[in-house]
Amino acid sequence: MQRHFDEELKALKQELFNMAGLAEQAVGKVIKGLVDRDPKLAQAVIDEDALINRLEVQIEETCLTLLARYQPEARDLRTIAMVFKIVNDLERVGDQGVNIAERTLDLLKQPLLKPLIDIPKMAVLAQRMLKDSLDAFVNQDAELARAVCRRDDEVDHLNDQIYHELLVYMSQDPKTITRAIDLILVGRHLERVADHATNIAEDVYYLVRGTTIKHRLAGN
Amino acid sequence: MQRHFDEELKALKQELFNMAGLAEQAVGKVIKGLVDRDPKLAQAVIDEDALINRLEVQIEETCLTLLARYQPEARDLRTIAMVFKIVNDLERVGDQGVNIAERTLDLLKQPLLKPLIDIPKMAVLAQRMLKDSLDAFVNQDAELARAVCRRDDEVDHLNDQIYHELLVYMSQDPKTITRAIDLILVGRHLERVADHATNIAEDVYYLVRGTTIKHRLAGN
Repeated sequence: MQRHFDEELKALKQELFNMAGLAEQAVGKVIKGLVDRDPKLAQAVIDEDALINRLEVQIEETCLTLLARYQPEARDLRTIAMVFKIVNDLERVGDQGVNIAERTLDLLKQPLLKPLIDIPKMAVLAQRMLKDSLDAFVNQDAELARAVCRRDDEVDHLNDQIYHELLVYMSQDPKTITRAIDLILVGRHLERVADHATNIAEDVYYLVRGTTIKHRLAGN
Repeated sequence: MQRHFDEELKALKQELFNMAGLAEQAVGKVIKGLVDRDPKLAQAVIDEDALINRLEVQIEETCLTLLARYQPEARDLRTIAMVFKIVNDLERVGDQGVNIAERTLDLLKQPLLKPLIDIPKMAVLAQRMLKDSLDAFVNQDAELARAVCRRDDEVDHLNDQIYHELLVYMSQDPKTITRAIDLILVGRHLERVADHATNIAEDVYYLVRGTTIKHRLAGN
C-alpha cells in the first residue's frame, strides 16, 4: 500500500513540476514578448493559460483521490496538502503572466518609452525564485527555501526603482503617462510572481522544519 | 464517528466564517480610513493582519487534523479541501487590505485629490461579494455562488472607470501623478478582493453542482 502511494505521490510531484515549468515559462515568454516587442508571444501566454488552469484542477483532483484512496497520515498528508497549496500559487503565477500580457499588448501599440533593463532583470529573479521554491519542495531543502524568501527583498527593491524612474518620465512628459503606468503594473505583477514563490518557499520551510519563517505572521 | 466529524466540521466552518468576517472588515475599515482621512484606521488594518494570518495557519491545521482523524470521503473530503482553499483566498484578501492601507498612508500625506465616490462603491461591492461567497459555501447555495461571479464584471467596470478618470487628472497636472497612481492601485487591490470572492464562489459552485463555471478555464 505504502509503495503504491509513494509511486503515485512521485507521479503527482512530477505533474506539479510540469505545471510549475509552464508557469515559469509563461513569465519568461511574456517578458520576451515585451522586450522584443512581439505581440504574438504575449498572445500565446494568454492562450496557453487555459492549460495551466486545467492542470490546477487536474492536480487538485489527484490530491483528493490520493487522500481518499490511501488516507495518508503525518508527513504524507502534509505533503499532499502542500501540493494543493502550491498549485494554487502556480495558477496565480499564470494569471500574472496573463496580466503582463495584457499590459504588453497595450504597450506595443505605442513607441518604446525607454529601454527595458530592470523589468527583465526582475523577471529573471522571479522565475529563478519560482524554480528554486519547487526544487526546495521536491528535495525537501529548507535552506534553499529560506534563500528564496531572502531574495524577495531584491525583487521588491527593483520594483521600487522601476516605479520611481517612471514617475520622473510621467512628470516631465504627460504623453508618457499611460505607458509608464503599464510598465509600473508590469513591475507589480512580477513582484506578485516573486511573492508566490516566497509563499511556496515559506510553506516548504514549515513542512521540512516544522517552524515558520513566514514574515506574514509578523503582520507584514 | 460521523456525528463527531459533523460537529467538528461545523466548528471549522464557524472559524472560517470568523476569519472571513475579519477579512471583510479589514477592507471596510481601510476604505473608511481613506475616505475619512484617518491614518489610525489604515494602521489598524496593517496591525490586525497578523491575526488573519494566524487564523489561516490555525484553520489549515484543523483541516489536517480532521483529515487524519476521520479520513473523510467524497463530499466531506471535498468540503475540507474547499476550506483549505478558502482560507488561502481570505488570507490574500487581508494582504490586499494591507496594500490599500499602505497606499492610504501615502495618500494622507498629501491633500485630497478628488472626492472619492467610485472607490467606496467598489469596496462595498467587493465586501458584499466576499460575504455572499461565504454564505454560498455554508448554505451550499450554487445560485448565490453564480450571482457572485456575475457581479465581478461590475467591479471590473468601476475599476476601469477609476483608471480613466485618474488618467485625465495626471495628464492635466503632473502634481497629481503620485496620488492618482496610489488611487489606481487602490482600485486594483479592490478588484483583487472581488477576484478572491469570485474564486471562492466558483469553487462553491463546483462543490455543489459538480460542474465548473470557472471563466479561468476558458483561458481568461
